[in-house]
Amino acid sequence: MTPDFRLDRTLAAAELEDVLRQVGAERYHIRHPFHRLMVEGRLTREQMQAWALNRYCYQAVIPRKDAIILSRIEDRALRLSWRERILDHDGDGASPGGIERWMRLATGLGLDAQTVASQRLALPATRFCVGAYLTLVEKRTLLEAIASSLTEMFSPEVIGERVSAILERYPYVDADTLDYFTPRLAQAPRDVDVALAYVREHARTMETQQLVVDALIAKCEILWTMLDALYFSYVEPGITPPGAFAPEAGR
Amino acid sequence: MTPDFRLDRTLAAAELEDVLRQVGAERYHIRHPFHRLMVEGRLTREQMQAWALNRYCYQAVIPRKDAIILSRIEDRALRLSWRERILDHDGDGASPGGIERWMRLATGLGLDAQTVASQRLALPATRFCVGAYLTLVEKRTLLEAIASSLTEMFSPEVIGERVSAILERYPYVDADTLDYFTPRLAQAPRDVDVALAYVREHARTMETQQLVVDALIAKCEILWTMLDALYFSYVEPGITPPGAFAPEAGR
Repeated sequence: MTPDFRLDRTLAAAELEDVLRQVGAERYHIRHPFHRLMVEGRLTREQMQAWALNRYCYQAVIPRKDAIILSRIEDRALRLSWRERILDHDGDGASPGGIERWMRLATGLGLDAQTVASQRLALPATRFCVGAYLTLVEKRTLLEAIASSLTEMFSPEVIGERVSAILERYPYVDADTLDYFTPRLAQAPRDVDVALAYVREHARTMETQQLVVDALIAKCEILWTMLDALYFSYVEPGITPPGAFAPEAGR
Repeated sequence: MTPDFRLDRTLAAAELEDVLRQVGAERYHIRHPFHRLMVEGRLTREQMQAWALNRYCYQAVIPRKDAIILSRIEDRALRLSWRERILDHDGDGASPGGIERWMRLATGLGLDAQTVASQRLALPATRFCVGAYLTLVEKRTLLEAIASSLTEMFSPEVIGERVSAILERYPYVDADTLDYFTPRLAQAPRDVDVALAYVREHARTMETQQLVVDALIAKCEILWTMLDALYFSYVEPGITPPGAFAPEAGR
């Protein structure tokens, strides 16, 4: 395997899955310095707010992202299972979905709900990353759109690390505030099973397997670049672009 | 005028142009710390390479951006003048266009042409910014697509600063290497005249004028965020994402 994950032959399904896990091991944002600071308890409350406020923009777009994918699926059975994702994030009108639960995290950190929902203080970089995700699922093949969701293979690990570290090291955050993450631990593996089954079925040549690998890399880049922007604006050098959330007065 | 440029009444054409110039004064990337370092002669050769290599991705997409706009223009006369932009950047097969001239800048700085053209060492953030520009001209109104080009109102100033500073402070760069910028000084004002005439004609209400202002802000954010990413990866803290151009071995 070359460092940029170029395949040189068709892989068996299990081998392909190994390559995908290797992409995660090298490129998933669990390795990003901003995430490391978070789990080490070294972020200020304002930095945690910046994270929650920006990440909200990502959460808010997930059901639209999945609706684009849904609109491209011809197989009714697959549409039925993919539809679950939209319910997970939008809720069903009675119990809250992921977006509302993420808002609870944001307000639990002291942010104003309207400000968060308006997304107007988010970093432009966050919006460009989120837009890149929508463009990916709209313009690349359905196989790539589905494969890009496979970062969920790695999300239980990052969630586990994040939740226990936050509860231990950020005394002003309680378990209720982190309510977003609990259902994700069950939803993510279920979603991964569906997506991996699709990939196994539809990526049986070197070329299509390369598309799958590259789509996962592209999605890792989206998540990684969101943290780059947070680090740049709120950790070091701490240069906030005009109009974005600025925790410290006078900055 | 509020800090985020919310209009509260319909403006006369000259007033609208004043607001657009004010957006430029506050948001155009001439004010970005990375540009300031460049004109102060404080970038290393490797940092100049990173700039040229990433900015190439932006240059390379300009004719496609203008082709999208061209595809949306119903007025033949406007299509004729907008078409000039594509020629400026793609050339006419005999004399080189802006993309080739930018490549001359990149290779003049010591980069390999094939590597630059492949775009594979560019920062993901650069690609997301460039993608956001394509999405803007494709999905927003034609008025907004055209207004987003109005950053050219400010480009002669940034080019003037950049060219004289580079020739004075970067002895390894000669005038030929900066050949990209010379024709832009004549092309940009001509393009601005066309775009401003369109805006004057089609933005006669507060609502449409707000669209114009916001489109210009969005474009400034795209250019600004490209420099944020360069600063983060190549100046401070100097964290380069996996797979991107890494000038220093071992980083």
